[in-house]
Amino acid sequence: MSANDRPTGPQPTAAYDSAFLKACRREPVPHTPVWFMRQAGRSLPEYRKVREGIPMLESCMRPELVTEITLQPVRRHNVDAAIFFSDIVVPLKAIGIDLDIKPGVGPVVENPVRTRADLARLRDLTPDDVPYITEAIRLLTAELGETPLIGFAGAPFTLASYLVEGGPSRTYENAKAIMYGDPQLWADLLDRLAEITAAFLKVQIEAGASAIQLFDSWVGALAPADYRRSVMPASSKVFEAVRPYGVPRIHFGVGTGELLGLMGEAGADVVGVDWRVPLDEAARRVGPGKALQGNLDPTVLFASTEAVEAKTREVLDSAAGLEGHVFNLGHGVMPSTDPDALTRLVEHVHTRTAR
Amino acid sequence: MSANDRPTGPQPTAAYDSAFLKACRREPVPHTPVWFMRQAGRSLPEYRKVREGIPMLESCMRPELVTEITLQPVRRHNVDAAIFFSDIVVPLKAIGIDLDIKPGVGPVVENPVRTRADLARLRDLTPDDVPYITEAIRLLTAELGETPLIGFAGAPFTLASYLVEGGPSRTYENAKAIMYGDPQLWADLLDRLAEITAAFLKVQIEAGASAIQLFDSWVGALAPADYRRSVMPASSKVFEAVRPYGVPRIHFGVGTGELLGLMGEAGADVVGVDWRVPLDEAARRVGPGKALQGNLDPTVLFASTEAVEAKTREVLDSAAGLEGHVFNLGHGVMPSTDPDALTRLVEHVHTRTAR
Repeated sequence: MSANDRPTGPQPTAAYDSAFLKACRREPVPHTPVWFMRQAGRSLPEYRKVREGIPMLESCMRPELVTEITLQPVRRHNVDAAIFFSDIVVPLKAIGIDLDIKPGVGPVVENPVRTRADLARLRDLTPDDVPYITEAIRLLTAELGETPLIGFAGAPFTLASYLVEGGPSRTYENAKAIMYGDPQLWADLLDRLAEITAAFLKVQIEAGASAIQLFDSWVGALAPADYRRSVMPASSKVFEAVRPYGVPRIHFGVGTGELLGLMGEAGADVVGVDWRVPLDEAARRVGPGKALQGNLDPTVLFASTEAVEAKTREVLDSAAGLEGHVFNLGHGVMPSTDPDALTRLVEHVHTRTAR
Repeated sequence: MSANDRPTGPQPTAAYDSAFLKACRREPVPHTPVWFMRQAGRSLPEYRKVREGIPMLESCMRPELVTEITLQPVRRHNVDAAIFFSDIVVPLKAIGIDLDIKPGVGPVVENPVRTRADLARLRDLTPDDVPYITEAIRLLTAELGETPLIGFAGAPFTLASYLVEGGPSRTYENAKAIMYGDPQLWADLLDRLAEITAAFLKVQIEAGASAIQLFDSWVGALAPADYRRSVMPASSKVFEAVRPYGVPRIHFGVGTGELLGLMGEAGADVVGVDWRVPLDEAARRVGPGKALQGNLDPTVLFASTEAVEAKTREVLDSAAGLEGHVFNLGHGVMPSTDPDALTRLVEHVHTRTAR
């Protein structure tokens, strides 16, 4: 890419030649890189210790704590990438939305967003709204050296689902009622969220993140036609906004088998796949020119080492023909997972795929 | 089929020539038949009234009440089939498993099934265990006349998930830990449940149900390879056990896009499809020789009549080339749905598809 394509971005980071970034770029790798969604978090005793007494949202705003939590799984598991410790609602909190993350529940929004008048509460996000993000990423990249740091954000649909429902939902009935019933309000809401999300990702990239993942965690609740019509324009806007930086853009949602092609088309360089779709089938749906990330069922880790290795072999076999493969679970690490099982899994994938 | 193929079954019921049963058999129909999963239930004020003060499980054991509740949506909506009002845990309760259905939670099992010794608690089910089922279906078929009654049961995986987890789960981590970690125990558990489920369905067919639906509500949590290895043998056993009766066998689970072909292969005559997979794509996955059922997103009913009709048109358009189509929602009716929206939807589908 030319310098003009990256007007404000950083130079290639020290992590540029890492296996993870090479796999994202579909270049040859010394071994299949591994990281885990939610690797920084509740499965680690050292995490539970440093979080003691500190509410979730507050912990995301303390740069030293974020740095420590982000580094914990890198030290322990020898993963190929760090994922920034934060939460998808942090940018919403930063622009003044009255929300909290309740233990055992999830994000709860005091006054849900459901009318056109409510859109006014979704103001632009600037770097000054999230100084703790910039500081944490600077601290982290200094510590991480050649290990890449993945920044992240929630995608417009998933953020909208929390804002409209007022909290976690299994059905998204209020969000879908707007999506189906008032398409223009819905489009405007998602467009607002796309602007905020893009600004939040830019902050992370400018501070030193060498890849980003856009989590559309719950978009698998939609049929393809609805995704294309009502979600894809906003997700594309986010990807397009960060394209000039040239960092790999990963896109993931759970239960998105029917949407994989469209999620790639939205602008992802790497499409994350949950455990339901074998990677070779996912590659057919996504088409050429993209890497894939995934997709061991996280519950496999509750079984024996032999069972984990047998299922890992199935994943690696189905990844054999991919242009680029980042090994991951098909969803986040479950809180009751034995951390040693994760450490063994990283080593196993590295050994089995060493070239 | 010859008489020998149906050694114990009833003669064709008065409903034999109904649009619903014809569509299941892939015969020409006067209009596309419509029914709704959970049509009998919380969306209806007359249901809430008759259920007042009566716990869920108890209500399933009162034949007159079951009859009234099952008939309510038939009277109100003019649907083409009645679905027997019951719950998938009824046969487990009937053989003595200590469980209850807690309002706002779902089925809760006092002592989860997790060891080989626990299998002994899963004894055979006989008609004498569920006399209220036989009586309710006899009452119902007398009232229903030419309107078919769909019997139903939970499939072995979904029943196992409740028994092992001890209640509803989003991740099925305990169930999957057995499935991956002790495949023989898992297979034996599902085989036991297949026997119980088959016996429960036979009771319903012998009493007069003219179709059955096997709900594998949560099996969409599995990858295809795991479904084929760990679930399909038990589901096939259930379907095979009721095959001689010659009544259509419907199979449905939510989020089963990747499993549709295998769920048909397991022995279904009609494959239910949730709203995520367009019906023409579902037909490609299921292959010839089966009818499909579905698949309007139930949350569409919270939008305007115009929006409902536009989305219904999408469903009917994608069903245009099917061998047989039963119109339904892609999941159960949501409790806060306006019943009038359902009534209008039935009329709309009947009018649009009248031949």
